[in-house]
Amino acid sequence: MNNETLIKNLRNIPDFPIPGIQFKDVSTLFKNPKCMKIMVNEVYDLYKDKGITKVVGIESRGFILGAAAAVKLNAGFVLARKPGKLPAETISESYMKEYGKDTIEIHKDAIDENDVVLIHDDLLATGGSMKAVYNLVQKFHPKKVYINFIIELTGEGLNGRETFDPETEITTLIKI
Amino acid sequence: MNNETLIKNLRNIPDFPIPGIQFKDVSTLFKNPKCMKIMVNEVYDLYKDKGITKVVGIESRGFILGAAAAVKLNAGFVLARKPGKLPAETISESYMKEYGKDTIEIHKDAIDENDVVLIHDDLLATGGSMKAVYNLVQKFHPKKVYINFIIELTGEGLNGRETFDPETEITTLIKI
Repeated sequence: MNNETLIKNLRNIPDFPIPGIQFKDVSTLFKNPKCMKIMVNEVYDLYKDKGITKVVGIESRGFILGAAAAVKLNAGFVLARKPGKLPAETISESYMKEYGKDTIEIHKDAIDENDVVLIHDDLLATGGSMKAVYNLVQKFHPKKVYINFIIELTGEGLNGRETFDPETEITTLIKI
Repeated sequence: MNNETLIKNLRNIPDFPIPGIQFKDVSTLFKNPKCMKIMVNEVYDLYKDKGITKVVGIESRGFILGAAAAVKLNAGFVLARKPGKLPAETISESYMKEYGKDTIEIHKDAIDENDVVLIHDDLLATGGSMKAVYNLVQKFHPKKVYINFIIELTGEGLNGRETFDPETEITTLIKI
């Protein structure tokens, strides 16, 4: 699924956060009411028949469309956060980044075996952080786990989808 | 406006993040689809006649209900973030915290003079960070600025409302 209005409103920032990176700025989609509505409706259409009970958003840009889509899907919203941010007991997963290890946490009572989970983040590049959250959500033994991103980067030798097993169900609203 | 379902589902965490603090954990409201719906509908009912064009959410818990309410209000969603996180040109505001200075930023092109702005965050305690975002949003000269929180803490000598001029229009969904 591709969407001209979204692509047209997405802002490219050269050399952010470091030289050579073409940063995709989704804030220009969020600030546009028409784009917000398109994105929520697209996520809803993709998952309305899947029985989603929880949407997990990855801190912090994944909270935005994740929460709005959760409401539309009549699901709860769950926060995947960096260590030390969640106040109650958590389950965590660590993963390697380019320069060292990172960890992500979800509250221990946020997901259970009866849940059908949609994990959402804004951008699929290498897929490292999403893979960690995917592995983390599996530790709760939910019935089923789906993955959605706003943007999938396909250029420059990136193939984030290959980070996941082929049977993993991943959707993206725009591919660039 | 008070709401028994929200109060009943709000979790209290003693001694987080430091001893003596009774932390109000809104994640138990977000994970509950019924509470999410109640909160979105309450914000919508409070502001549906105000002509809101932008909802500003304060990083990062303010992104959650902020974004969901923006969609319901047919408004755009704007991110107020910590320094260095927003990729394009920003306007910033600094404020004093208990132990030193903090700064908050909004993209320079995120708000303009035609906007009617609702700023949202999860919790009103001292009001320091919201006051900074309120001052920051005023720098864009929007037509009007409103403020909403999920929770207003009224005990323990706190009176966050007194941080603001008396004419500032602030609503909160639950007072505890």
